Amino acid sequence: MAVPSQDLMSTIVSLCKRRGFIFQSSEIYGGLNSCWDYGPLGVELKRNVKEAWWRSMVTNRRDIVGIDASILMHPKVWEASGHLAGFTDPLVDCKACKSRFRADHLDNLDKCPKCGGQLTEIRKFNLMFKTFMGPVEDQSATVFMRPETAQGIFVNFLNVQQSSRLKPPFGIAQIGKSFRNEITPGNFTYRTREFEQMEMEFFVPPTEDEQWYDYWKEQRLNWYKNHGIKSDNLRMREHGKDELAHYAKACADIEYKFPFGWSELEGIANRTDFDLKRHSEASGKSLAFFDEESKSHYFPYVVEPAAGADRATLAFLVDSYDVEGEGKDARTVLRLHPSLSPIKAAVLPLVKRDGMPEMAEKIYKELLDNSIKSFYDHTAAIGRRYARQDEVGTPFCITIDSQSLEDQTVTIRERDSREQFRVAAASVVETVSKKIKVKSL
Amino acid sequence: MAVPSQDLMSTIVSLCKRRGFIFQSSEIYGGLNSCWDYGPLGVELKRNVKEAWWRSMVTNRRDIVGIDASILMHPKVWEASGHLAGFTDPLVDCKACKSRFRADHLDNLDKCPKCGGQLTEIRKFNLMFKTFMGPVEDQSATVFMRPETAQGIFVNFLNVQQSSRLKPPFGIAQIGKSFRNEITPGNFTYRTREFEQMEMEFFVPPTEDEQWYDYWKEQRLNWYKNHGIKSDNLRMREHGKDELAHYAKACADIEYKFPFGWSELEGIANRTDFDLKRHSEASGKSLAFFDEESKSHYFPYVVEPAAGADRATLAFLVDSYDVEGEGKDARTVLRLHPSLSPIKAAVLPLVKRDGMPEMAEKIYKELLDNSIKSFYDHTAAIGRRYARQDEVGTPFCITIDSQSLEDQTVTIRERDSREQFRVAAASVVETVSKKIKVKSL
Repeated sequence: MAVPSQDLMSTIVSLCKRRGFIFQSSEIYGGLNSCWDYGPLGVELKRNVKEAWWRSMVTNRRDIVGIDASILMHPKVWEASGHLAGFTDPLVDCKACKSRFRADHLDNLDKCPKCGGQLTEIRKFNLMFKTFMGPVEDQSATVFMRPETAQGIFVNFLNVQQSSRLKPPFGIAQIGKSFRNEITPGNFTYRTREFEQMEMEFFVPPTEDEQWYDYWKEQRLNWYKNHGIKSDNLRMREHGKDELAHYAKACADIEYKFPFGWSELEGIANRTDFDLKRHSEASGKSLAFFDEESKSHYFPYVVEPAAGADRATLAFLVDSYDVEGEGKDARTVLRLHPSLSPIKAAVLPLVKRDGMPEMAEKIYKELLDNSIKSFYDHTAAIGRRYARQDEVGTPFCITIDSQSLEDQTVTIRERDSREQFRVAAASVVETVSKKIKVKSL
Repeated sequence: MAVPSQDLMSTIVSLCKRRGFIFQSSEIYGGLNSCWDYGPLGVELKRNVKEAWWRSMVTNRRDIVGIDASILMHPKVWEASGHLAGFTDPLVDCKACKSRFRADHLDNLDKCPKCGGQLTEIRKFNLMFKTFMGPVEDQSATVFMRPETAQGIFVNFLNVQQSSRLKPPFGIAQIGKSFRNEITPGNFTYRTREFEQMEMEFFVPPTEDEQWYDYWKEQRLNWYKNHGIKSDNLRMREHGKDELAHYAKACADIEYKFPFGWSELEGIANRTDFDLKRHSEASGKSLAFFDEESKSHYFPYVVEPAAGADRATLAFLVDSYDVEGEGKDARTVLRLHPSLSPIKAAVLPLVKRDGMPEMAEKIYKELLDNSIKSFYDHTAAIGRRYARQDEVGTPFCITIDSQSLEDQTVTIRERDSREQFRVAAASVVETVSKKIKVKSL
């Protein structure tokens, strides 16, 4: 059953709250605009998304290593990167009603769209959050919360390269929080002031930049598909020359068809040698790479796939949401890739007697001891318990019934097909492990 | 060989930089005081520490769920929690030389310990970092970067309880960054202004608080021991009544014998019902739990084990550091628990010819495809390559030698014992997997 897209977002927001995926931040105090908290199921889903990214970008690869740089960085980093001067939105205020607008969102700068009043001149508003380090709140103590994780990679380029003995082409990956004081956040967790990035900077010989740019566009698009996003809901949009940031030679967005329209999930950019050169000039410490073979220094080019962990999580939620059947036979199911599902297995004794709970308990404990995220439920009718698990994307339900007590087998029900098969109780952990195991995707 | 403790910290700081565990933040710009970046090996170690905590606190347990709340929270949270008024250090300034001191660190408040000048009155300095949300920098836009993750759990108590249908005793766990504008940070990554916490709030019926307090003290101490910390370097220190925070009925620190002295790794506190009551009063939304059995509401008591991810990581590094033998036979080895080691297996073809690299390459690829973090090294003599891996704590070295080509076996060398045994090349992945596999610890 197709869900009208205008209703889909509100349905998902409501499901997210009811089932513990995502809550409004500080909700009991009326909420904090555009900040969200991940609940018990949301935190597991997002952890799985981040883990899947790290696995495919770092663990399974020989040419990429990770780092974890601090959120607070030296202010000179943002001077050199251009963020201090250029990371701004143009704002205007209405002199009459005091409303504030992004100038680039207005059609007419002559009068206020709300009250018709006169607007101020455009002024630049820097999107970096600032704070003060140390006890004095003055200019010299001002530091910024990073607006992107990428700069933490650039300033560490030589430290990483020399300690890991890698040479271009190689990459440095990072997952971490960034902060942007957006004027117009919105669309649930899509555009928020606090968000988590998954960025990788791939350093290549300058002559190889175009081939690696093509390579990463393909790799990253496949990553979403391999983790279950429908191809029809994904597209690659190459930026026109006029759209490119000052540091970029080329850029493409992987867009997802959200209920609120096609929107960027991830950008893949050819950042050239801009960042390494700027930091070398600004710091007086050359970040050029010394090539042993040619016995000369050069600045590698950088190809950057920069994804948002919250956006990816939201896309996986939206894309997997499905309502099957009609009326009282309808079921809601999150068809999440098993590697992303917050709960991998639910253990369900058919009834609360005849030794079924004891047998179920033993299986549940074995799953937990093997670090397979599981859930035990002995309340309500079995159909209702299946429905609860379908709604949160649990791929396998393990039911202990009267036959189980006779022959020591249990049923495993698959979420998507609803098909059931019997396995020996003693092999449940092994069976589920195999089915959720992720090889390199 | 015992390493003198005064040298041990500088040796470890140097190893951390050289091998890519920890770098100074923004180092090329002279560094940012007390901020540190985790390099390729450090990020893996810290990820493993956090994963071990999450596994033992959430994944392997039936009575604890996770959340991930935002760093920026509603300012009223900090008003209610007492942080806005009370989370302060007492400071004094020297009127002559302008030096600044923590008043509680001075023996004599009559004169400056540096120049003998007159000191100002004591003033309270709040340790929370503040910033401004939205385009206007004024009082109404002021928000704080959380100084602890715990409050994100308290304000979400009912959302989590109702969506997960758990009832006391149950816990909510969280890992995330916190920020404190410390006047005197120091001791490498031990005391920093930006740090990552691993906190769990365990909600219990008020009558059960003491038994759960004892339970969590024991559990948490065992966690460090089970992951390899020597018992002699750990102790539990119960706080005196005069040391207790205003919200606490009891508190104990798990301390580790760092080279700079016994220092807190983790605190276990009985926070009573203070936080839930305060947020209920301040928000006007009751966070009392409704007990279905007694058909009445009550405020659970809270037992909180609060650990530091950076401190734990540093303790694992320091504790595992060992120098074995003397002179030219000496070897440095990080005896990390295999579940924490950044690299699980190194693949080493004995020589770079005779088909050994090809066979090694095949094993390396198989390890990577199975998400076993591995490293390939074909440079230098084999002894030197073993030494490199010992120094970063890699538990297993897989060597491909001439016999390998004849009978399709390889040697696996164990880091701590230096013993070697042969296994079929085809079973390397399975053998290593079993050895690094973590069941519930």
